[in-house]
Amino acid sequence: MTTHRFAPTQYHNVLGTFPPALTIESGDTVITETIDANGWDKSGAKLVSGPNPMNGPIAVSGAEPGDSLKVEILDMTPIRATGWTRAALAENVVDPSFVPNLPPRDRVTWRIDRNALTATLESPPAGLAGLVLPLAPMIGCFGVAPSLGQAISTATSAEHGGNMDYRRFGPGATAWFPVAAPGALFFLGDCHAIQGDGEIVGTGIETCFEVSVRLTVEKRTILWPRGETDRDIFTIGNARPLDQALQHATTEMVRWLGELGLDVSAASHLLGQTVRYDIGNVYDPAYTVACRLSKKWLPA
Amino acid sequence: MTTHRFAPTQYHNVLGTFPPALTIESGDTVITETIDANGWDKSGAKLVSGPNPMNGPIAVSGAEPGDSLKVEILDMTPIRATGWTRAALAENVVDPSFVPNLPPRDRVTWRIDRNALTATLESPPAGLAGLVLPLAPMIGCFGVAPSLGQAISTATSAEHGGNMDYRRFGPGATAWFPVAAPGALFFLGDCHAIQGDGEIVGTGIETCFEVSVRLTVEKRTILWPRGETDRDIFTIGNARPLDQALQHATTEMVRWLGELGLDVSAASHLLGQTVRYDIGNVYDPAYTVACRLSKKWLPA
Amino acid sequence: MTTHRFAPTQYHNVLGTFPPALTIESGDTVITETIDANGWDKSGAKLVSGPNPMNGPIAVSGAEPGDSLKVEILDMTPIRATGWTRAALAENVVDPSFVPNLPPRDRVTWRIDRNALTATLESPPAGLAGLVLPLAPMIGCFGVAPSLGQAISTATSAEHGGNMDYRRFGPGATAWFPVAAPGALFFLGDCHAIQGDGEIVGTGIETCFEVSVRLTVEKRTILWPRGETDRDIFTIGNARPLDQALQHATTEMVRWLGELGLDVSAASHLLGQTVRYDIGNVYDPAYTVACRLSKKWLPA
Amino acid sequence: MTTHRFAPTQYHNVLGTFPPALTIESGDTVITETIDANGWDKSGAKLVSGPNPMNGPIAVSGAEPGDSLKVEILDMTPIRATGWTRAALAENVVDPSFVPNLPPRDRVTWRIDRNALTATLESPPAGLAGLVLPLAPMIGCFGVAPSLGQAISTATSAEHGGNMDYRRFGPGATAWFPVAAPGALFFLGDCHAIQGDGEIVGTGIETCFEVSVRLTVEKRTILWPRGETDRDIFTIGNARPLDQALQHATTEMVRWLGELGLDVSAASHLLGQTVRYDIGNVYDPAYTVACRLSKKWLPA
Repeated sequence: MTTHRFAPTQYHNVLGTFPPALTIESGDTVITETIDANGWDKSGAKLVSGPNPMNGPIAVSGAEPGDSLKVEILDMTPIRATGWTRAALAENVVDPSFVPNLPPRDRVTWRIDRNALTATLESPPAGLAGLVLPLAPMIGCFGVAPSLGQAISTATSAEHGGNMDYRRFGPGATAWFPVAAPGALFFLGDCHAIQGDGEIVGTGIETCFEVSVRLTVEKRTILWPRGETDRDIFTIGNARPLDQALQHATTEMVRWLGELGLDVSAASHLLGQTVRYDIGNVYDPAYTVACRLSKKWLPA
Repeated sequence: MTTHRFAPTQYHNVLGTFPPALTIESGDTVITETIDANGWDKSGAKLVSGPNPMNGPIAVSGAEPGDSLKVEILDMTPIRATGWTRAALAENVVDPSFVPNLPPRDRVTWRIDRNALTATLESPPAGLAGLVLPLAPMIGCFGVAPSLGQAISTATSAEHGGNMDYRRFGPGATAWFPVAAPGALFFLGDCHAIQGDGEIVGTGIETCFEVSVRLTVEKRTILWPRGETDRDIFTIGNARPLDQALQHATTEMVRWLGELGLDVSAASHLLGQTVRYDIGNVYDPAYTVACRLSKKWLPA
Repeated sequence: MTTHRFAPTQYHNVLGTFPPALTIESGDTVITETIDANGWDKSGAKLVSGPNPMNGPIAVSGAEPGDSLKVEILDMTPIRATGWTRAALAENVVDPSFVPNLPPRDRVTWRIDRNALTATLESPPAGLAGLVLPLAPMIGCFGVAPSLGQAISTATSAEHGGNMDYRRFGPGATAWFPVAAPGALFFLGDCHAIQGDGEIVGTGIETCFEVSVRLTVEKRTILWPRGETDRDIFTIGNARPLDQALQHATTEMVRWLGELGLDVSAASHLLGQTVRYDIGNVYDPAYTVACRLSKKWLPA
Repeated sequence: MTTHRFAPTQYHNVLGTFPPALTIESGDTVITETIDANGWDKSGAKLVSGPNPMNGPIAVSGAEPGDSLKVEILDMTPIRATGWTRAALAENVVDPSFVPNLPPRDRVTWRIDRNALTATLESPPAGLAGLVLPLAPMIGCFGVAPSLGQAISTATSAEHGGNMDYRRFGPGATAWFPVAAPGALFFLGDCHAIQGDGEIVGTGIETCFEVSVRLTVEKRTILWPRGETDRDIFTIGNARPLDQALQHATTEMVRWLGELGLDVSAASHLLGQTVRYDIGNVYDPAYTVACRLSKKWLPA
């Protein structure tokens, strides 16, 4: 098991089948620094344009279509003293008649205290002077090359992952993606210091991180991204409207519980009384819903 | 402040403007026993047919259209040794192509242990033999008479509340409803021993409760239901698709934060990085989304 | 077969189970004058407030839950020299980011020429000076009392009909509604001189009509409204999003074709290559989709 | 103006930025034979796999991002004696609870009479023995390379066009696509002998055509596909749910009317009372809605 330091020489605004920037063995670890959603790096230099420039692709030897790529998020360390957000809710998360009340979507700076692991607004508006948010790092956009040779914008998401903006994809979590191209071709970027559900201002606190991930090929087939934290397992659906994203996620969870020995009726009983749904992204073309189940309810 | 014991002599399958079954003063408490979603009472007798027969209406003196009715859920005590659920996920929460895999939606019995405050399947399927769920009581359907003299089925929900099936409406929580008829005309019923997000099998564990609520008229105007627990405040949107329910809830939260001194930009900053969305009901004609904010982030 | 002249003494803003204003025999004809969506009558007097005040209910002897009420729209004669519309698209029919570009939704007057059967803007904006629209009268809101004793606002629609705003419900057309209350309890109002698909400014040209309808009880069960013109048969679904309205309408059409001898596979073949979908209302809480089939394709 | 005969040597299952298979001058005509949605050619040979293999890309000299590509559909001649469809409605166009009633989605053969220009089922089920459909040829999938270097599956659609399945894209119609890559990179395929609205069995009558199109670069910017027939102009939105597709299409039509001299209020007046909405595809990941306006209402 090797650890690779990966310094990209180019970035991608789509997830697609490109020549690998790095090829590793299954089980290897990659440490890489990400730039922010608009292409600014840790020194504040604009390297490339958005949306969400990706580090990658990283090929994992032996990964074949039909496999899963397991991604363990080992560590995320903020590497810039500032982050930014937008100053207004997105138009699509409020009632259409309320849209004219929204302020301009200016870019706003947050101070990131890397010792205290907190974020504060540089110029807080009235009522938020004392607001100190604890960092809750997460990967906004990551995944693998999609099927059919598609190349899909990092502004959206689908079966291959992408811009899911789900806050439980942080340090300690594991994600699985359905492999659709030889080598899987893993991409990551768009990391957030913290973000509420839905990314409803169109951003988390956008900044740069050093990210450490372990990538492992697993010989099982999944249809949608899956994940695990210390407490929960979850499945991801990406689609619009939220109703359809929820259908994808729920169906994938029923398949997962089937693999664990529960038939559809047993899965229905368990999910019916214990399921939790989280909303990842409700800003981008495809929305994200997670279907989540506490591990304490899983069959032994 | 009087405490009333209310024993209904009839039940309602709609929330509407009916003659009050009980009239109380603002601030009074009402203790009442609810029957289950199909009309079975605590002794197992079928009193009336479904959907969700309601106790009420309870008129509160002085409530006028434009006011809010504050409903403190003081206590919920289970009063039957059994509850029931459906044995399959609802067709609308899985991928359309997966629907033929769903088992029949049979009614299934759970044992409710009122000392241990747990629920267990009477005949657990393979893999769920050891499943013991802690009770987490909640009111599935409650609210006030809607506007315009409407009478709306207890199978659905709207601005007036109704069948929201939101698990945070349990003991210790407070709800507010927009008053649309003189006296507010409060209804409640359809209580669940526990329920996962979304009520995705079409039921929680349906059973009977003794419920104690304190009803108070407040002279402020709200457009959608609101709520509070010891940790959070939240707003409710009821609509389809989930996207629209989320818009209603988010917009109502922005209005609430405005009342607390945050302009739309400040509210955007705060919600953008800290909001939580919960899904109440994704089974009935109108879906329910809660927009939730931890009290720790509120302005002092 | 009697012809009744019905002059309402009150109007309803909901469709519900009220005492009949008129009771007729199955097959009788009713002639009645409607007021406009805001409650102005043919002389310009404001009789009542909106939304969509209804004439009715008219009870039809012998109608029982499970029956259908056949409504033949025999004639619609405009009886006022003016109509009105709103001056801007509804916020929900444009991209959310475009909403701030919409002008105020002022009320605008149209001249109705009852000899030429045309409508023209009283003060046309630049580019529309010569616009002369032929009248295409239609009933915006009609239907029967809904199930469960519900009373549903005339601003929306459901299985019982209501505010569907479908332009093919004009003179010469026939509608069927599922009877849910004894006597069916028929309501009508909200007539339009002309209207585009979707009622996307929130109005057609709102005016007053003398309407003549023949009401007949049929002993067959339908789940959603159906209709017929000289060329087509169609079914109606009312829901949000449009996707769900389309599902309701398509499913009801498959049932109808089943009654005509086509199994689901044959219905699939026929609809797959010949179906037409029309959008009734995309403005109100429930949207309307019609699933339409030319009679020339029906089995003999 | 040259006419090119284009015989593809490879086909694409995505629309993306590939090396041109043919480069032409603006205003040139291309005649090409398409294969069917599953990759069968006019002789019945399986050349490639689906979905919807595309002829192309055809580069048009001088086309730059920000331009429009005008596509005049000059002629479509069927070149195979058979077509095929699926034998059941798609699961997503009926009520979820109705899905178990759908028959298997077998492939079914139709006879295409190229003299009479009609299609008939090879083995008609009961009730459809006499069904003879007139051909109504249309291009199911066409468009240009999308922005950002994306490569998007021919099973779906977006701003660049793609699998819109709109029946008015037939001979005599003109389409415009927003150019996002140098040369525009035009693709076409997936032609249908006839198709109902929505492609609700997941296919039209899938067959092979000789298609003749004239491609012209226009120096105006559009955001979504536009079109024109002898009677109408129309705009296209591709998204889910239908509500959002309708928003995109309506907003693009308002922009178009602005180019023709109508401000938003005038456009609202005109569209409000005369617009027609058509549903292209309600089967694939993105749905298609056309916003259509009769030319007779356009300002002079």
